[in-house]
Amino acid sequence: MLFDKVTIVGLGLIGGSLAWALRESGEVRTVYGVDSDPGSVDYAVETGIVDEGSIDTAEAASGAEVIVAATYVGGIADTVKSLIPHADDGALITDVGSVKAAVVREIEGFIPERLGFVGGHPIAGTENSGVRNAVLGLFGGKRFILTPTAKTPEAAKEKVRALWRLAGSDIYEMDPDSHDRIFGLVSHLPHAAAYALVDAILSSGDPDPLFDFAGGGLRDYTRVASSSPEMWADIMTANRDNVLGALRQLTASLSKIESALEKGDREELLKIFNAAAETKKDRIK
Amino acid sequence: MLFDKVTIVGLGLIGGSLAWALRESGEVRTVYGVDSDPGSVDYAVETGIVDEGSIDTAEAASGAEVIVAATYVGGIADTVKSLIPHADDGALITDVGSVKAAVVREIEGFIPERLGFVGGHPIAGTENSGVRNAVLGLFGGKRFILTPTAKTPEAAKEKVRALWRLAGSDIYEMDPDSHDRIFGLVSHLPHAAAYALVDAILSSGDPDPLFDFAGGGLRDYTRVASSSPEMWADIMTANRDNVLGALRQLTASLSKIESALEKGDREELLKIFNAAAETKKDRIK
Repeated sequence: MLFDKVTIVGLGLIGGSLAWALRESGEVRTVYGVDSDPGSVDYAVETGIVDEGSIDTAEAASGAEVIVAATYVGGIADTVKSLIPHADDGALITDVGSVKAAVVREIEGFIPERLGFVGGHPIAGTENSGVRNAVLGLFGGKRFILTPTAKTPEAAKEKVRALWRLAGSDIYEMDPDSHDRIFGLVSHLPHAAAYALVDAILSSGDPDPLFDFAGGGLRDYTRVASSSPEMWADIMTANRDNVLGALRQLTASLSKIESALEKGDREELLKIFNAAAETKKDRIK
Repeated sequence: MLFDKVTIVGLGLIGGSLAWALRESGEVRTVYGVDSDPGSVDYAVETGIVDEGSIDTAEAASGAEVIVAATYVGGIADTVKSLIPHADDGALITDVGSVKAAVVREIEGFIPERLGFVGGHPIAGTENSGVRNAVLGLFGGKRFILTPTAKTPEAAKEKVRALWRLAGSDIYEMDPDSHDRIFGLVSHLPHAAAYALVDAILSSGDPDPLFDFAGGGLRDYTRVASSSPEMWADIMTANRDNVLGALRQLTASLSKIESALEKGDREELLKIFNAAAETKKDRIK
């Protein structure tokens, strides 16, 4: 057994799938799940996604070696704050938020010396949410990004790495600011673009016949537009400056295409399209 | 046998897949394929995608009951023009271009009375191109849009409908201008957005680490950015005004998101995201 008690706070898609993977690994004595929704806890206990569970944060935190805050980005700092009084000395806390800098800074501001914290972000998910959509193997072969700072205790880094290795993740490390800049561009921006694309079509004269012909290309882009609006409002708000920068970059690129098209400059259009096609072929696996 | 000789001009993904479907239907006496690339013709003949083939347009057109121009949008009108001297009286010509208004208008300007023309657009494809990527069943259950005008002979409509029914398509009809407005929004705009998205990332400081993390959302959006840049430059140029309008609508929607984020207006963000998520769920099948 690598771990004694590991507590997952928030039994959603990510928390549930992590709990399940840890249980299956056989390397955690007790996988404990806690959620404000009793139905999610019952489901997780009955299906064996967790060993034990409750809606009681105090019981959940007590005796835990590692506590994973798997709530929405906007709620992570409060979740961690509420756990602190109940956590054993030496317990390590981590999270799974899609935005890191603001959350990590806030938590580092109040976490007591007797506990350790390190931020993390598993790059995995589906367009579904909730523990009932948990997937065994969701993190297998997927990247997990650990975002330590100068303040991070070495033990926190090592244990959280070991935990995600049990879930099958490939572990990467970067500082919280780099993380947010990168994901602002490769994840938050494409989601914003998908929402904008649907909004643009809804804003056009008579959208109904349009959606009948979504097979022409729209459908591929809008799968993500069905994922949770609350979650994405949270993420974009938490990564506001990077997302704003990325949106401005996208607007500039759209305006390059617009101006090439306006001038009938086929060479310029081809330059932009070729660069994108080559990038897609060579660098996006 | 519903048809005697049907000629496909341009053995690419669409032309090749249509030829193959017609051959398999058993309702066409001779499926004849012509292409400027002898390798494509040889491949189509050897694999049985066509009954006969050559690089000779005159031979291809002669005796054909229906001729399908399956070349790039930018080349369709010239293709049709080159076929006219060799086509039998009463032969019907159609095309498969992704943009209709300009092409249909141009062809209707020079097509002689002894022939009939009607535009068409099968809503099917893959990100691959060329006859070697032809797919049997590519059009099965997919939409085919016939774009007649006041000048279209009834016989042309009927025969072209019958032809695409043999390929398994569901036939829709709309005028060329409506077609171009709709596909400017649901197809050409998403493709432009994908190119712009990759361009935005390439324009950001140090793009390399970014593409390593494309799994965060980018990958879903950029599958289409690997399809032929020449084809897309052609399509957007041929549908310039609609694409420009759609680009402006997308820019306006992005700017709505940008401004909501700047002001920290979570309600407005949620309004946009919820509308998109509901649309995706209810109306994009």
